[in-house]
Amino acid sequence: MLLITLEQIREVLPQLDLLPSIEEGFRAYSEGKVVVPPVGEMLLQKGEVHIKYGYVKDNDFYVIKVASGFYANPDLGLPSSNGLMLLFSQETGLLISILLDEGHLTDVRTALAGAIAARYLAPSKINRIGIVGTGTQARLQLKYLRQVTDCREVCVWGRSAEKLESFRAEMELEGFRIESTSISDLAKRCKLIVCTTPSKTPLLFWKDIRPGTHITAIGSDTPEKQELDPMILRYANIVVGDSLEQCKLRGEIFQAFDAGVMDSKKPIELGHVISGITPGRSSDKQISVADLTGVAVQDIRIACEVYKTCLEKSAFKS
Amino acid sequence: MLLITLEQIREVLPQLDLLPSIEEGFRAYSEGKVVVPPVGEMLLQKGEVHIKYGYVKDNDFYVIKVASGFYANPDLGLPSSNGLMLLFSQETGLLISILLDEGHLTDVRTALAGAIAARYLAPSKINRIGIVGTGTQARLQLKYLRQVTDCREVCVWGRSAEKLESFRAEMELEGFRIESTSISDLAKRCKLIVCTTPSKTPLLFWKDIRPGTHITAIGSDTPEKQELDPMILRYANIVVGDSLEQCKLRGEIFQAFDAGVMDSKKPIELGHVISGITPGRSSDKQISVADLTGVAVQDIRIACEVYKTCLEKSAFKS
Repeated sequence: MLLITLEQIREVLPQLDLLPSIEEGFRAYSEGKVVVPPVGEMLLQKGEVHIKYGYVKDNDFYVIKVASGFYANPDLGLPSSNGLMLLFSQETGLLISILLDEGHLTDVRTALAGAIAARYLAPSKINRIGIVGTGTQARLQLKYLRQVTDCREVCVWGRSAEKLESFRAEMELEGFRIESTSISDLAKRCKLIVCTTPSKTPLLFWKDIRPGTHITAIGSDTPEKQELDPMILRYANIVVGDSLEQCKLRGEIFQAFDAGVMDSKKPIELGHVISGITPGRSSDKQISVADLTGVAVQDIRIACEVYKTCLEKSAFKS
Repeated sequence: MLLITLEQIREVLPQLDLLPSIEEGFRAYSEGKVVVPPVGEMLLQKGEVHIKYGYVKDNDFYVIKVASGFYANPDLGLPSSNGLMLLFSQETGLLISILLDEGHLTDVRTALAGAIAARYLAPSKINRIGIVGTGTQARLQLKYLRQVTDCREVCVWGRSAEKLESFRAEMELEGFRIESTSISDLAKRCKLIVCTTPSKTPLLFWKDIRPGTHITAIGSDTPEKQELDPMILRYANIVVGDSLEQCKLRGEIFQAFDAGVMDSKKPIELGHVISGITPGRSSDKQISVADLTGVAVQDIRIACEVYKTCLEKSAFKS
């Protein structure tokens, strides 16, 4: 059994070409090759725990991920999010590896999904990237977008001046030019917009969206959270979900269904866009939306990739 | 984070007084102080995986247990059952300990439940213990019964002469006198009977049961498995389940309900017998049945006890 620490994970991550692997995961998912039982959920007085698990048929491993959110943790100087991943053999059930990622791999696989959505759905020329929010995911989305676009011009919106400043400082070191602005101004000026907040009311409105814009909605992963005006999903040319089954129950697609403004047949699945079964964007004038609620196949793929590389390294050392 | 190996677990187990702790767990469960979400389940081509999790309110930890059964493993020289337990803080969600018990703690907590059932339900004088089955659980049940009875006379029934011989050899070293016999003879001669097989049809019949017998049914933990003639549950004076909620869906109580032979109000809960809220056995002439399907609170209690002792040992060493 290989125990992998967060430090080791951070060391190998830059060496991995994860984008194609996660893409392959979405494709397999949409082709029905992935078994993902319902998410386990447990509420405690001070937090909540989710257990996501599943496997890709005919692969070597199955993965169980535990993710927690304890919202008073920052008062104790601890991150609110935490977790680990367990890798088992599909052949024998034996525990193969424990990845003590403390939730970091969930953050990274989420950022990779954003990059994949942009790769397949953003217009061919991105003049400026709009980032809504200034937290961990806002930063990671921007970092991983470098893999799919050369654009380094960024508009950012956030509620706290202090967090905006720290976002700017960190992202400028990563090679971006950062300008903070209002959401409506951001919407009007950016062809690629990524929403990363835990908002429960819409932040981005249809009236501000220009032709040729792609919007990726990352923040909403529960039935309560919502960042987009449902009219955006109603009038967009293309609406894509990472898992249509899950998007019926949570996220922006759920919100648009719940508001009764979108036809149930409109959303298409990301894996089908990747494989080309369903056409994605066909012109630079279209408006597209990707609603990413997070699917266990992302966890499975990233855990397997990190494990394989760490295993090679440990074999090399010994 | 404290990583605890099976070797360390085997080393500390004999030092622990687990019976009162598991009893306390059953009591807390029946008092509604334990949160146990539905069991997570995943089927694979070669096996199955169960995820049991939960916590006792106002305690320090919550526990997630992964247990697997891969039935071709013995052909590869591996045990079919496997698993591990994870201990987290209820305060912060931080991972506190990983117990790499490979399923052993599940075996032990199941044996402890059998000892507890015997403690509260067996007649005051046990002339002879009857064990149905010769596997791991048959052996552990007998070993742990030493904590609640001085009886060392045992009748055993099993299908394989070879396994009967190895059972006899191992149990005689533990201080028991072992005689193998037919089930009906065993039923007639033993005042305490423990059934430990994965049978899907009844093995033990009402016509063979004598007044003053207590039967603990360990084997049936799914809707398919059954070791007892439902007439035993119909005519027994006392029928006890570890979790009445769970026993409605699986195990011997479920079978008796399904056969339509037992009143829905007859079964009582083990935790209530332990706390004295519901009376258990009131005379040595009564016949009682305990149906033990396995409850997550047993995992929670045993994981916490093993962790605490291992932590003390590691503090002592450093």
